[in-house]
Amino acid sequence: MEDKGRSETEIFDELHQFKTRDMTHRSGKILGSMCTCPHPIGLNAFKMFLESNLGDPGLFKGTQAMEDEVISSLGELLGERDVYGHIITGGTEANIMAMRAARNTFKHNYPDCEDVNIVVPKSAHFSFKKAADMLCLDLLEAELDENYRVDINSLDELINENTAAVVAIAGTTELGKIDPVEKISELCLKRGVYLHVDAAFGGYSIPFLNEMGYDLPNFDFSLPGVCSITIDPHKMGLAPIPTGGILFRKKTFLESISIETPYLTEDRQSTIVGTRTGASTAATWALMNYLGKEGYRKVSKECMEITELLHRGVVEAGFNPVTEPELNIVAFTSDEMTVDEIADGLERSGWAVSISSYPRAIRIIVMPHVKEEHVELLLDDLRELRSLHSKE
Amino acid sequence: MEDKGRSETEIFDELHQFKTRDMTHRSGKILGSMCTCPHPIGLNAFKMFLESNLGDPGLFKGTQAMEDEVISSLGELLGERDVYGHIITGGTEANIMAMRAARNTFKHNYPDCEDVNIVVPKSAHFSFKKAADMLCLDLLEAELDENYRVDINSLDELINENTAAVVAIAGTTELGKIDPVEKISELCLKRGVYLHVDAAFGGYSIPFLNEMGYDLPNFDFSLPGVCSITIDPHKMGLAPIPTGGILFRKKTFLESISIETPYLTEDRQSTIVGTRTGASTAATWALMNYLGKEGYRKVSKECMEITELLHRGVVEAGFNPVTEPELNIVAFTSDEMTVDEIADGLERSGWAVSISSYPRAIRIIVMPHVKEEHVELLLDDLRELRSLHSKE
Repeated sequence: MEDKGRSETEIFDELHQFKTRDMTHRSGKILGSMCTCPHPIGLNAFKMFLESNLGDPGLFKGTQAMEDEVISSLGELLGERDVYGHIITGGTEANIMAMRAARNTFKHNYPDCEDVNIVVPKSAHFSFKKAADMLCLDLLEAELDENYRVDINSLDELINENTAAVVAIAGTTELGKIDPVEKISELCLKRGVYLHVDAAFGGYSIPFLNEMGYDLPNFDFSLPGVCSITIDPHKMGLAPIPTGGILFRKKTFLESISIETPYLTEDRQSTIVGTRTGASTAATWALMNYLGKEGYRKVSKECMEITELLHRGVVEAGFNPVTEPELNIVAFTSDEMTVDEIADGLERSGWAVSISSYPRAIRIIVMPHVKEEHVELLLDDLRELRSLHSKE
Repeated sequence: MEDKGRSETEIFDELHQFKTRDMTHRSGKILGSMCTCPHPIGLNAFKMFLESNLGDPGLFKGTQAMEDEVISSLGELLGERDVYGHIITGGTEANIMAMRAARNTFKHNYPDCEDVNIVVPKSAHFSFKKAADMLCLDLLEAELDENYRVDINSLDELINENTAAVVAIAGTTELGKIDPVEKISELCLKRGVYLHVDAAFGGYSIPFLNEMGYDLPNFDFSLPGVCSITIDPHKMGLAPIPTGGILFRKKTFLESISIETPYLTEDRQSTIVGTRTGASTAATWALMNYLGKEGYRKVSKECMEITELLHRGVVEAGFNPVTEPELNIVAFTSDEMTVDEIADGLERSGWAVSISSYPRAIRIIVMPHVKEEHVELLLDDLRELRSLHSKE
């Protein structure tokens, strides 16, 4: 830091230069992220509440009231209005909170158990690795079936007397697949194990798609084994980052991870993060009320239509989809080029794609900022890449 | 959620109503929070980078470059420019990251050690309780001396072969006290234990105050035992929330908590939170460059002068300070009224004060939004409270 400060003009000139080095969602070039252009209504609501700190909610009673409304609305969307939870930073914090609640509840019931484990699908988000490391849990990975959904027999075999939680996924990070949560719920009830559903990606689209006649599997609190759900307003909910959500069926789960907070305006705190912006809550509240279910149905449907367009286009361009898209993710490989060659080629044309790890494939997430024109341009580039490669 | 959305006007009318129920820092009535009015330059920089996600930094290379600059500048401010760290959500995430790094490093060296512990001052922030619960660590609390700084003999006695980390505090949450970090650094070197300094509160003021001739104890990387430091730009750094900072002396500490992140633009992630807003980094960068050390000296000095004014006023009004203020916190009790009676009385006049737990006292944090006129009004109310009480 210099001793003397610089002028406001200089500062903002330089900030603009930094900004030109960032990619934008609006460009349509970001194809490997589950974040998107925040909706302007959500963005404006977010900016209105930048001072509000839900880590000290007694000072911000208006924001606190909004959070209560938002949690109930999210619960209602997911099959049970009377849930307990918080608006937090995203899926990672949500998943860690859920694993912590499951572990603490388990340790309360079985205080002498050592080597506690969690059983997650091989397709689980890396936040469960983080949770396992942080929370001293063994991570047992269940195999997937031929459609990249968790194999329920593999789950069943891994569960043992040391299992604190099973995780199911409604919209896997890599391929957007929905695990058979109904059966997993039955299994967890039978085995007496906590079930967490990571619906960070699918939570804000599956319910709306089903309202329009899609026939996607159930994954929510209407299944009696489900104890907690991660749902991310900053993904398909169009809220600005960082805006995640964690919902628990029972208050005791939230209480099991609460810590006494002397000198704050609330007595106990259950989130991982301490200072917690109320802006995320305001954005979620505003978007739910502004868009309504009708608005969100439109968002989900458009993404699915563009996904279908991309999927067909990829096939027509001679690439091999690794699976039928279930949500708005398309993944493919090529017989002629390696995945890295495709990724490098697309990167040279300015696209930011990502590579899934299982199976290794080009992975494109059709978030709401990815429009038909971007898909057309991408398909042009894919065709050109293939034709260039065949000439080499 | 309703099926049909509502109009933008309705949404923002209702948001304004929620907002009127929130307190504001600008009112001067918030006296028990370490957050403050964000500086307008920081706020505008923050708003410019709301789309940027440092959880996927390859997409946001401008923001990433800013973060690198900010981390080096913070390191330089704290005695060592070549440090490794991140801009995160706040002191809690920072402290948990540090405890995780210490634990993982310790477990790497002593894989068979069970019952790992951390030794913290009794005055430590509650985030260490959270860290201990999350990370499966025993929390050993060292006693304080008569000035509410940690007693080094008590620390020394608690350290044992299972100790993964010792924590020292530069600006305690309750009383703003600075632990004797120089001696603690020597002790930790001698005992071979990781030392983390929680300077969430003091990190952005102690260096500036010392530049102006205050004689506050050293706490930073110039002390060879210090392995990591928490410093919060959203406290005395005037950045909007959520903006915290964690700095590690060695890259291996950061690496010890990193998790592989397939399909993102970086290979590994060390923060707890996954999606991580770049807005916080932009605000910190902008404020460092706009204010410079000169600007921050002014901020710290004004807070200390108003603290002194409040401290004297409290004594003159017949209350008992529990200690001499070392940073910008004043804490006091009364012979005539209980702490709760004082707090209730002040609350009736619209003040949001907090109560420290050790010792139990009214605790007022003189953040930059607390101006001379607010202190005068507060002292009026304190005098009136005392006179009303004596008539009862």
